[in-house]
Amino acid sequence: MLHDPNHLYIFDTTLRDGEQVPGCQLTTPEKIEIAKDLERLGVDIIEAGFPVSSPGDFQSVVELSKAVDNVIICALTRANKNDIDVAADALKYAKRPRIHTGIGSSDMHIKYKFNSTREEILERAVAAVKHAKSYVEDVEFYAEDAGRADLPYLAQMIEAVIAAGATVVNIPDTNGYCLPDQYGAKIKYLKDHVSNIDQAIISAHCHNDLGLATANSIAAVQNGARQVECTINGIGERAGNTSLEEVAMILKVHQQQFPGLTSTINSKMFTAISQKVSSMMRMPVQPNKAIVGKNAFAHSSGIHQDGFLKHRENYEIIRPEDVGLSEADIILTARSGRHALKHHLERLGYQLDKDQLAVTYEKFLVLADAKKDLCDDDLRSLMQS
Amino acid sequence: MLHDPNHLYIFDTTLRDGEQVPGCQLTTPEKIEIAKDLERLGVDIIEAGFPVSSPGDFQSVVELSKAVDNVIICALTRANKNDIDVAADALKYAKRPRIHTGIGSSDMHIKYKFNSTREEILERAVAAVKHAKSYVEDVEFYAEDAGRADLPYLAQMIEAVIAAGATVVNIPDTNGYCLPDQYGAKIKYLKDHVSNIDQAIISAHCHNDLGLATANSIAAVQNGARQVECTINGIGERAGNTSLEEVAMILKVHQQQFPGLTSTINSKMFTAISQKVSSMMRMPVQPNKAIVGKNAFAHSSGIHQDGFLKHRENYEIIRPEDVGLSEADIILTARSGRHALKHHLERLGYQLDKDQLAVTYEKFLVLADAKKDLCDDDLRSLMQS
Repeated sequence: MLHDPNHLYIFDTTLRDGEQVPGCQLTTPEKIEIAKDLERLGVDIIEAGFPVSSPGDFQSVVELSKAVDNVIICALTRANKNDIDVAADALKYAKRPRIHTGIGSSDMHIKYKFNSTREEILERAVAAVKHAKSYVEDVEFYAEDAGRADLPYLAQMIEAVIAAGATVVNIPDTNGYCLPDQYGAKIKYLKDHVSNIDQAIISAHCHNDLGLATANSIAAVQNGARQVECTINGIGERAGNTSLEEVAMILKVHQQQFPGLTSTINSKMFTAISQKVSSMMRMPVQPNKAIVGKNAFAHSSGIHQDGFLKHRENYEIIRPEDVGLSEADIILTARSGRHALKHHLERLGYQLDKDQLAVTYEKFLVLADAKKDLCDDDLRSLMQS
Repeated sequence: MLHDPNHLYIFDTTLRDGEQVPGCQLTTPEKIEIAKDLERLGVDIIEAGFPVSSPGDFQSVVELSKAVDNVIICALTRANKNDIDVAADALKYAKRPRIHTGIGSSDMHIKYKFNSTREEILERAVAAVKHAKSYVEDVEFYAEDAGRADLPYLAQMIEAVIAAGATVVNIPDTNGYCLPDQYGAKIKYLKDHVSNIDQAIISAHCHNDLGLATANSIAAVQNGARQVECTINGIGERAGNTSLEEVAMILKVHQQQFPGLTSTINSKMFTAISQKVSSMMRMPVQPNKAIVGKNAFAHSSGIHQDGFLKHRENYEIIRPEDVGLSEADIILTARSGRHALKHHLERLGYQLDKDQLAVTYEKFLVLADAKKDLCDDDLRSLMQS
């Protein structure tokens, strides 16, 4: 088999599934800049575009293929000859090219999108993989809307495309429909019922319509998937794709749950790459976004601040340094306690005994009830009053 | 037992766990306005504040108690007499008051936050519940950092506080540490090992540090929890709390997975309440936020737009109307196909045959590669050229 079953492949589709979002479009030089960052971040595969979709997207795949050396460059197609011919052409400079082809697998897509039958769709799937295989060794097949597909039919399709040469089989929950136990069970079913499944890597491609993309991806890995398709900041169509940074940090924090699984992601780059993607693609990251939100490491309530200052692991499961931040924040609001106030006053050079602190804290609360945030100057005024 | 085990209680803590976030502080009239919206939305419990934390927060609990009629008003305390006395005083006008008291349950919190022992903490927990019970019938107990607590000890603590009168037992994953299968297993363990567990409602209180708050809450419900603590837009300390709108829509979309479970949430209010909370609390919602993000129902890629226009359920698991939006968006970018272009041109009154569409589409792609978004005027110029 072409790929390593003990490696967790991170397939980044920021520049394809992310970039197709309204307002997110990038120029080719911008895509190259992000692709080089993704290479340094340690992703295994970059999905560079959908070459047949527009001349600009074709050219981006050409230029990304030239610009990046150590990462697999992947191009998306539908299951037809022309899409695949164009993708192969766009990938001609890639050192490690992959064609990503596929077709709908749910009865809803077969009937209402393709006006076709299960048998015909299966034939088209196999033909597409064989055609892609005539150009490149590494062919990924996506069974679109697998989240709602009939399981025995899905297994039959996956077995057929692996027999036709697919090296990676992608089981997309296209509409973000599945619950984690359902999506995990789907992956397990394929592991148990597809006779040649060990000749390919199973890939999870989840969408976040119900807020479950990360959980579904992790459930897939727990059940045997070895590739996760994701984007920086979870950007993507509708509610977006799986967040790369969330999956990577879960694997790091819970590594004992995934014994023997290797990953090459350098999480210290997360803050910087998140900010670059957000600004270049004009997609704001909300303050309460996990891992990369502005507040992700900001402790504000009194109970938490006190516990954190006594022993940071009381309220911290990830060290901010591990994602490239300098330190956690202890922010002063009317919900802060004496311990947090003392911490900041000492930082500003004020030493108070217990009684002085009690008096100052009462004044602080009145001020904090009236103001949203307190800055260092507010504390200095407080001490001078 | 005080509460209905076949109801899924939605416990909203936007005004407590959400409001303590830096920059989110509200005035009392603003809190009243949101509380009245939450009441119309159909939440079962509003956590109104942490009365001992500041005079302003105390007053808010008093005023919310007066303003709201049909919802349980809950006030947070630590496990000490003074906090509980103050909370009971703040709740004196509530028609249906609840005191929410609790203490750390993990060895880390017991040792590094309380400098105490398991035995002493258990005594304090029981004493706090008994004291709260002397004021109100409805007492919720939180076992802080339950996500990392020793399970047999946690079960012992939960059994003791139910025996002392707790009507709801909250099992917080305070630090957002658990994977969904781990958190679900914790709830199941308590169902199986706490002899008096059927005398109380189990509550899930999850944080989103790893992007798993919603998935963990759902895993809890699947394993017997009947209350979910959440906030509008998932706001809250650090990466925030569970998103109310995500949990409610999962229960709606997957209702066959939760047979017999009732809920009173009117999802048609989600868009409006999300925007109000975002603007009043100055917490932007990212465009790719599930359910309430600006793009949550926006289809942009050609493959999706084509499939959606053929049959909307191909790419839509929630109808936008169900969350209070007027309709889904079909946005034109360089990733759009002929079908989407035709849809918009017809909307503007242009009828094209197949050949005309093909020619127009080529010109459209050149324009769309150069521009981020295309508006109706761009299409009119295209047709006039």
